[in-house]
Amino acid sequence: MSESIRISVDAMGGDKGPRVAVEGAYLFWRERKNTTYIFHGRESELAPLVAEFPELGKVSRIVHCDNVISMEEKPSQALRKGRGNSSMWAAVQSVRDGEADVAISGGNTGALMAMSTMCLRPIEGISRPAIAAIWPTLRTDIIVLDVGATVGGDAKQLTDFSILGAALARALFDQDLPTVGLLNVGTEEMKGHDEVKEAARILSAASGEGFVYHGFVEGDDIGKGTVDVVVTEGFAGNIALKTAEGTARQVGTYIRNALKADIISMIGAAIAGQALEALKRKLDPRNINGGVFLGLNGVVIKSHGGTDEIGFKGALGLAYEMARNRVMDKIAEGLRRFPTLNAAPAPAAAPEPEAKPA
Amino acid sequence: MSESIRISVDAMGGDKGPRVAVEGAYLFWRERKNTTYIFHGRESELAPLVAEFPELGKVSRIVHCDNVISMEEKPSQALRKGRGNSSMWAAVQSVRDGEADVAISGGNTGALMAMSTMCLRPIEGISRPAIAAIWPTLRTDIIVLDVGATVGGDAKQLTDFSILGAALARALFDQDLPTVGLLNVGTEEMKGHDEVKEAARILSAASGEGFVYHGFVEGDDIGKGTVDVVVTEGFAGNIALKTAEGTARQVGTYIRNALKADIISMIGAAIAGQALEALKRKLDPRNINGGVFLGLNGVVIKSHGGTDEIGFKGALGLAYEMARNRVMDKIAEGLRRFPTLNAAPAPAAAPEPEAKPA
Repeated sequence: MSESIRISVDAMGGDKGPRVAVEGAYLFWRERKNTTYIFHGRESELAPLVAEFPELGKVSRIVHCDNVISMEEKPSQALRKGRGNSSMWAAVQSVRDGEADVAISGGNTGALMAMSTMCLRPIEGISRPAIAAIWPTLRTDIIVLDVGATVGGDAKQLTDFSILGAALARALFDQDLPTVGLLNVGTEEMKGHDEVKEAARILSAASGEGFVYHGFVEGDDIGKGTVDVVVTEGFAGNIALKTAEGTARQVGTYIRNALKADIISMIGAAIAGQALEALKRKLDPRNINGGVFLGLNGVVIKSHGGTDEIGFKGALGLAYEMARNRVMDKIAEGLRRFPTLNAAPAPAAAPEPEAKPA
Repeated sequence: MSESIRISVDAMGGDKGPRVAVEGAYLFWRERKNTTYIFHGRESELAPLVAEFPELGKVSRIVHCDNVISMEEKPSQALRKGRGNSSMWAAVQSVRDGEADVAISGGNTGALMAMSTMCLRPIEGISRPAIAAIWPTLRTDIIVLDVGATVGGDAKQLTDFSILGAALARALFDQDLPTVGLLNVGTEEMKGHDEVKEAARILSAASGEGFVYHGFVEGDDIGKGTVDVVVTEGFAGNIALKTAEGTARQVGTYIRNALKADIISMIGAAIAGQALEALKRKLDPRNINGGVFLGLNGVVIKSHGGTDEIGFKGALGLAYEMARNRVMDKIAEGLRRFPTLNAAPAPAAAPEPEAKPA
């Protein structure tokens, strides 16, 4: 693969300052030499950092921007303050302006979603964007969306998310016909909100066109990897994601405590150390860092705000795969194919150019 | 404690037949001799089983009932077929008729909830029952409700669940002022459905009356044990519960695989065996088996359908604690105290007796 992938980086996002983004980019570049970088942020801080990695300097440029969105800012405040003139906005705008293939930020999720939506706008035919998580399971990685872009969601949105998630699965996992499941509760008859039932009806009718509709799945099907794409609205999806994180941390703590309980256990743990190290790597959230904003005219990756350079490198890997595998083309193809029942087939026309904000 | 606790058992519920219930009761009785049992089900099957445990025979009686609700039956079918004449219905009716202090079944959750609601009816002032889970966390066990009784729920229901959950925490954990949190998503501004925000307003105003309102909590706060009672509607709660179960199983599988990866790891695991055994017990779902139906004029415990006699014994332990600690009185007290903002204070009057079904 010799084609170059251009990555736009909000270097000021994240809790730990710009070093994480710059060093993460250097680490990733060493693995993928066909990448170039635009770092958005304060030149006085970024220039010395990039200078530490001369090879990175050759494949990147800095676009100066004074204004930085803080992690505490509310999305509406961030938009008022940072629209058009913050490192976060500028990072997304590079994608809109065709200067980059994908944008990445470790900043405030709500602000990044608000800015991405305003700057890139939803794809025609898609009513709202979603945040997709790449979720490790016992079978293979799967996609779960929406994990927090929007609270609530009607049947149209759930079917939109199915198209978006299936396109992402085709792009990332090279699957022709990913399976899609609707997240629901287990008890017969009380099964789900009306919008989930309606979405099930639409997806059943459309199954086979770019994905196979599996049916309802429950919370424990996520970890089993029962389907390739789990679709839900953002409230339940966010709670599922956070609950899984909390449970994994809880079980991890139990393990550590159990193996420190007495001297015999400590010796055993030391002997089994290599296996336990491998397990630790598997459970390391840094290796699966990154949420994907889907449904906009461009791809934006949200890296975890608290991550380090290893985690940021992981999120860059996700950004790279998204661009290299042309997820946007696959979404457009999905929209053309999908015989949506409550909306006219979406044209694959280019979005109207938006006037540049002042 | 010499007071006797009378437990009504649907002996035909569960996937593994009546032996689980009868043997589970015997195992529990050996630990708590102040218990007596009514076994509802087919006498021809139950009598020989009870005869295997002569001591149990002295503290129990069998109430014959031919009709058994299957695990596959829909709640409405189950009601039509089994109202008044199934082992499940009869088990609940013993509580209504004052013959037992608590009922337990390992049968079909939806059917059990439908029958319990029809037979016992909601407490005056409570609009809908909830299923509460006792959730092990890094701090201590906590209560999460609703984990699947009802999809959706308005602010009134969420505040009802807070009263019910707090009463359960006071009964089970002997806490005077349990902390209550509303499950929500993390992103500022998109925070929650309107009903969650409205419930937060009501609970803030009422905080200090039987519980302390902590504020919003997220999915990962459950495993941390941030609050004593996590309140949510049944869709999100069920997904959180199942996702946590799935994640715990997933991590458990990783551990087993890691420790079997090579001979060195196996030796290490053998040496650390005792600690790993303790961990396994901690993660054993049989030890935390049982959902509590709350909000009805009587307490019903749902044991997991697939559990064995050890798991059923665990669920009996929960039933015992509920009765011994007078959770019904604590709920009535909570309702009297709670200055509910959108309903008149509920009188603590006894419910009208319902006509016996034909």
